[in-house]
Amino acid sequence: MSITKTLISNFTKVRQRTESICAPLEKEDYAIQPTEDVSPPKWHLGHTTWFFEQFILVQYVEDYQVFNKEFSFIFNSYYEKLGERILRTDRGNLSRPTVDEVYAYRKYVDEIMEQHLPALSCDEIENILTIGLNHEEQHQELLITDIKYILGHNPLLPSYGYFKAHLPIEENEEWVQMKRGQYDIGFRGDTFCYDNELNPHTVFIEEYAIRNTLVSNQEYLVFVENGGYQKFDLWHSEGWDWVQKNENKSPMYWHKLNGKWNHYTLEGLQELDLNAPVTHINYFEAFAFAQWAGHRLPTEFEWEAANQQFKWGQCWEWTESAYLPYPGYKKPDGALGEYNGKFMVNQKVLRGASVATSPSHSRSTYRNFFQPHLRWQYTGIRLAK
Amino acid sequence: MSITKTLISNFTKVRQRTESICAPLEKEDYAIQPTEDVSPPKWHLGHTTWFFEQFILVQYVEDYQVFNKEFSFIFNSYYEKLGERILRTDRGNLSRPTVDEVYAYRKYVDEIMEQHLPALSCDEIENILTIGLNHEEQHQELLITDIKYILGHNPLLPSYGYFKAHLPIEENEEWVQMKRGQYDIGFRGDTFCYDNELNPHTVFIEEYAIRNTLVSNQEYLVFVENGGYQKFDLWHSEGWDWVQKNENKSPMYWHKLNGKWNHYTLEGLQELDLNAPVTHINYFEAFAFAQWAGHRLPTEFEWEAANQQFKWGQCWEWTESAYLPYPGYKKPDGALGEYNGKFMVNQKVLRGASVATSPSHSRSTYRNFFQPHLRWQYTGIRLAK
Amino acid sequence: MSITKTLISNFTKVRQRTESICAPLEKEDYAIQPTEDVSPPKWHLGHTTWFFEQFILVQYVEDYQVFNKEFSFIFNSYYEKLGERILRTDRGNLSRPTVDEVYAYRKYVDEIMEQHLPALSCDEIENILTIGLNHEEQHQELLITDIKYILGHNPLLPSYGYFKAHLPIEENEEWVQMKRGQYDIGFRGDTFCYDNELNPHTVFIEEYAIRNTLVSNQEYLVFVENGGYQKFDLWHSEGWDWVQKNENKSPMYWHKLNGKWNHYTLEGLQELDLNAPVTHINYFEAFAFAQWAGHRLPTEFEWEAANQQFKWGQCWEWTESAYLPYPGYKKPDGALGEYNGKFMVNQKVLRGASVATSPSHSRSTYRNFFQPHLRWQYTGIRLAK
Amino acid sequence: MSITKTLISNFTKVRQRTESICAPLEKEDYAIQPTEDVSPPKWHLGHTTWFFEQFILVQYVEDYQVFNKEFSFIFNSYYEKLGERILRTDRGNLSRPTVDEVYAYRKYVDEIMEQHLPALSCDEIENILTIGLNHEEQHQELLITDIKYILGHNPLLPSYGYFKAHLPIEENEEWVQMKRGQYDIGFRGDTFCYDNELNPHTVFIEEYAIRNTLVSNQEYLVFVENGGYQKFDLWHSEGWDWVQKNENKSPMYWHKLNGKWNHYTLEGLQELDLNAPVTHINYFEAFAFAQWAGHRLPTEFEWEAANQQFKWGQCWEWTESAYLPYPGYKKPDGALGEYNGKFMVNQKVLRGASVATSPSHSRSTYRNFFQPHLRWQYTGIRLAK
Repeated sequence: MSITKTLISNFTKVRQRTESICAPLEKEDYAIQPTEDVSPPKWHLGHTTWFFEQFILVQYVEDYQVFNKEFSFIFNSYYEKLGERILRTDRGNLSRPTVDEVYAYRKYVDEIMEQHLPALSCDEIENILTIGLNHEEQHQELLITDIKYILGHNPLLPSYGYFKAHLPIEENEEWVQMKRGQYDIGFRGDTFCYDNELNPHTVFIEEYAIRNTLVSNQEYLVFVENGGYQKFDLWHSEGWDWVQKNENKSPMYWHKLNGKWNHYTLEGLQELDLNAPVTHINYFEAFAFAQWAGHRLPTEFEWEAANQQFKWGQCWEWTESAYLPYPGYKKPDGALGEYNGKFMVNQKVLRGASVATSPSHSRSTYRNFFQPHLRWQYTGIRLAK
Repeated sequence: MSITKTLISNFTKVRQRTESICAPLEKEDYAIQPTEDVSPPKWHLGHTTWFFEQFILVQYVEDYQVFNKEFSFIFNSYYEKLGERILRTDRGNLSRPTVDEVYAYRKYVDEIMEQHLPALSCDEIENILTIGLNHEEQHQELLITDIKYILGHNPLLPSYGYFKAHLPIEENEEWVQMKRGQYDIGFRGDTFCYDNELNPHTVFIEEYAIRNTLVSNQEYLVFVENGGYQKFDLWHSEGWDWVQKNENKSPMYWHKLNGKWNHYTLEGLQELDLNAPVTHINYFEAFAFAQWAGHRLPTEFEWEAANQQFKWGQCWEWTESAYLPYPGYKKPDGALGEYNGKFMVNQKVLRGASVATSPSHSRSTYRNFFQPHLRWQYTGIRLAK
Repeated sequence: MSITKTLISNFTKVRQRTESICAPLEKEDYAIQPTEDVSPPKWHLGHTTWFFEQFILVQYVEDYQVFNKEFSFIFNSYYEKLGERILRTDRGNLSRPTVDEVYAYRKYVDEIMEQHLPALSCDEIENILTIGLNHEEQHQELLITDIKYILGHNPLLPSYGYFKAHLPIEENEEWVQMKRGQYDIGFRGDTFCYDNELNPHTVFIEEYAIRNTLVSNQEYLVFVENGGYQKFDLWHSEGWDWVQKNENKSPMYWHKLNGKWNHYTLEGLQELDLNAPVTHINYFEAFAFAQWAGHRLPTEFEWEAANQQFKWGQCWEWTESAYLPYPGYKKPDGALGEYNGKFMVNQKVLRGASVATSPSHSRSTYRNFFQPHLRWQYTGIRLAK
Repeated sequence: MSITKTLISNFTKVRQRTESICAPLEKEDYAIQPTEDVSPPKWHLGHTTWFFEQFILVQYVEDYQVFNKEFSFIFNSYYEKLGERILRTDRGNLSRPTVDEVYAYRKYVDEIMEQHLPALSCDEIENILTIGLNHEEQHQELLITDIKYILGHNPLLPSYGYFKAHLPIEENEEWVQMKRGQYDIGFRGDTFCYDNELNPHTVFIEEYAIRNTLVSNQEYLVFVENGGYQKFDLWHSEGWDWVQKNENKSPMYWHKLNGKWNHYTLEGLQELDLNAPVTHINYFEAFAFAQWAGHRLPTEFEWEAANQQFKWGQCWEWTESAYLPYPGYKKPDGALGEYNGKFMVNQKVLRGASVATSPSHSRSTYRNFFQPHLRWQYTGIRLAK
């Protein structure tokens, strides 16, 4: 059986969407890496392309000529497997290959992919292709948040362009009551999911309540102005170290100018929108806010069990759960085995999706994860008790 | 009702045991802090004393004169609450107060405690006293491991004296089979436990097997000599960073001399005992070993559910579980509230007890915790699958 | 008296030469800052322009409208004087202003300068203009060495284009004998010089000899292969720390490939030219080489006293002298006072000029200076004894 | 010819004086290393002993049995020459050997030295013995300043005991005028001096004036209260970084308590003595003060040329000179060659002597040196213009 037309058409759409995200950028924006966790847009463009070249074209297309054999070094994120090299490099130093060369690379790979895909026909390729598209969708979200970081840390605070990031909260605040008992957790369908969502299994949850709405900027502002960042007993010990070391006093992108709170958005600097959910806070901040409010964060199981009772999708929601393997979890063999398992320590799970998440790249069993101090993603707070 | 005689007699015993642990030391050993996680023995002696002075004598004994008002600054571990001070200090700089002064401090506090305890009589004091004794027992274990670190990082490798740390594994290796279903977790008795062991609750566990014996030095040596520390795919990403940065190639205290493996023990440098459990490994190493062996570490719930099926108590056993609050967990109010809750991020749970654990300071629900990179405790590996 | 035509014509030439140096670059090359000491080419272009805008146009041209008031923040190197700002910035994060905007800025300032200069007429302006041109010539040299660093640390090792950097040594090696006695040091003419070359004064020098030729790659290669980087007694204590910490084993840009020594040049990677002077070594390396050769480096006074006896101009030559004020040295008032004086500690003097030095920007009294560990400039070794 | 009685008697006196300096210490004080530049007193005691054992007894006394062969590792400061070792060590971790063992080591070496010295008889030994005594005298000064640092950074601020460190300035302030011309510099006698004071040579100095008195605490206090630590243009670029990074606002050991300035002295915390010379300031502070006062620091040559015109000996006086080799300087061969030469970069020269300098360990040609940021020595300021 050959690869489905839907999948091939998806390939084209996903690849184009990545380029659309970059359309508003100047060439100079593509090469900047202002901090370790943020990658230059050019690197995202190249890396997602290298994925298809390396795992499909090189493996399955006879006589395939790689576009540039240096690129497998430059755009590979799995440095551990590399052989000897003249120079180590940092992603932020890569003025070359140029943006034009990277787009040429994309075009070259896309054309050969589109030409050969209809004739390729095994489950394994279909599987890799699906992973590759999901992988690229993850990088689409990172592209948006990395671009926000790059522009939002430029003293000119340039605008990226129209981007509907801060929608108001429309529902009235309510607490959804959930019963004590067994719940089914994990992905059960026959469509795509990541290895970390498997295996589906049973958990036992005590009685709890979870809020239908996210915490708003207004609520968070009260916490800020009430001295939340000065009260050490609201924070984890590591969280307090983070506050002290960085002299943090508000979410990322908040700026107080002439006594008024503003926040940097992809449309430029704007007055803080009090009705929108608070975002760009890290786990330490989410936890401290919940403590201060007399509540707590939900576990990822509580979140999943209750997710049909509330609207989600505007911010990734920090949970109290650590990112750990589900029962019976097995890393896949080969290079793709590095995808999820090796990060299963010192990370917290986030559930839901954000305004930057790619369409059709979200589901209620999806397990996103970040280190607790990071806040450049669109992250928010849902309370439980 | 007044404080029980048993408790008062316990007070005397626990306080004396702390001093017995230090008996083999030279005065100079008391003041050294070779690394951040290790405290000088003198500090442990003073800090555990300050606890009783501050939380019992100052609060409940009329006209109590503190031994030295500077000590509350020096021996307080809760720096966040301090007022203004001339100088900040590091524990490792404290040549003064002298060892003799610290013993005089202990004597002063102990005598007043023993004199007044029989007359004091409320649940609250009994509660604080019990916490204080458990607190001191925790520091007894730290004293032993910190002394081992201090002497074991001295180039003369001096011996501390007789200490039965490396007992052979006597059982034959077997896998205990456990059924899928609900299990009760957490402390249920009416004797003392820490807040983090409450509340008792139900968990659902999938079918699993757990080994009756700990991993031996012999087994771990095969892993070492098989290149376990060179195979990045056995390690977490953070674990691999740790291996690379510190150029680690074996457990702490192992030394290869003239082609033969030795380990530093509290009795000095000795030939590696192949039949004893491997110890002084961190979570990253425990995980990598389990990966290499084709198995995994148990969760803390799996451990607790099965703990009556195997012998434990020689090493703290790393689990796969992150250190998180149990359902319904509430931090106590006041200074004692800082005891456990603020560490509930980026730490792994260890279960069991070790040769250095104080008598009667262990139970099957006890939740010990450390950051995943630490290995100066007597830590070991039990496998699950 | 109005500003001379020569000076105005110089202005145009110097400004154009800066842009010629950047002509071979891709836009992406302009924004990269791979290490702290290297500035992005875009920053050099903006900063040299800001100098004329700030110190001439803003001060002396009525109704002058600054091109963009944010630029005085972005392109000012004197951060200490800044007022409050929303964000601090690193030069390497500046994707905006774009390259095109920076060139527009240059054009705007140049046109207004050229239009108004003929009518402006005071010594002070002429003085600032002259400093501004010399300042820009210094940045021209930095542009070349920073571009070399940026491209030479890109794993693709791209070529900048034709650049005659490695000329052979043509003279036969000889030692020039110099007599004991008083010598006149410092700038005495009525043309431009920096404040640090004043005041002219007398020094007393003991008898010495100085070599007419620079140390060649061939000579330095013997040192490298003779284990020069492994012999701690050839090095200063700080130099040895530098060797150990960075695992240095050869000059910057040397690469051993398949057993053969190559060096990266602005024309790309080439076989090491044995007859060319060794370059891109720091003071520690220059000193260690001299120790190994049984000689020493000259002082800056020995160099200046003897400079007419040998050819110089291919590499900046490390001297044994620390960068210190001459007798009677006074920092100029105002912002220009920060130019030289504040660096007069922990820096070594280099004398001569290099292939990257701008035409007419060299003289025998010129005092260049860098910290002893830096080696991205065209630096070389002349021996004395 | 055999070793002179004077030298042998000197040996005994110097060795005893070292122990007298330590007499007021508690055992616990001997092992502390609160910062990298400060060594534990125990290490000084052992290291100065190891010097005689290694360079005299081991070399020249037949059948000499080293006291403990581990000690050559522990008490050797020349780590570069060491062979393989089980463990690296930090001086601050050395609880063992104990203080008693170190004193036993001293006694053992001293007795054998005193027994054999009369029979030993060559210039080389006399030379090494003299160096060893001068070496020990240097460590005597370090012992005093290191003890001050250890006790002065203990939050209890304990007193060391009677030590006459802060004598009032008795002379009236005057400027000594010095003529332009040639001056002889360097040591010319036939008694002991360090290699760095040789060779005597001629320098040419421009006309200058130098103050007869040191800068007082009173004068420096005006600078402090006048905002001297907030005015960046008074400081070197590196000095300003030091101010900012450490938030320095006054000399080391000054403490403002209840609005009044105190300083920690070896006799404990005392009200700041306004008539005593300011001390414990680094080169950056000395330079900034001189800038603020409209003067400058003298060069080491100016200092030496004028030294008979003023009283000196209370503080080491920062000069403007970098620590560089004199003309014709040659490092001695062998291990003693590491003594001075390898530090001749990034250090400033101090001239004079301090209250902590050992008797007969000072002369007008003596070149002391420290890195410009250090201030735990008794360092002060003499102005020139």
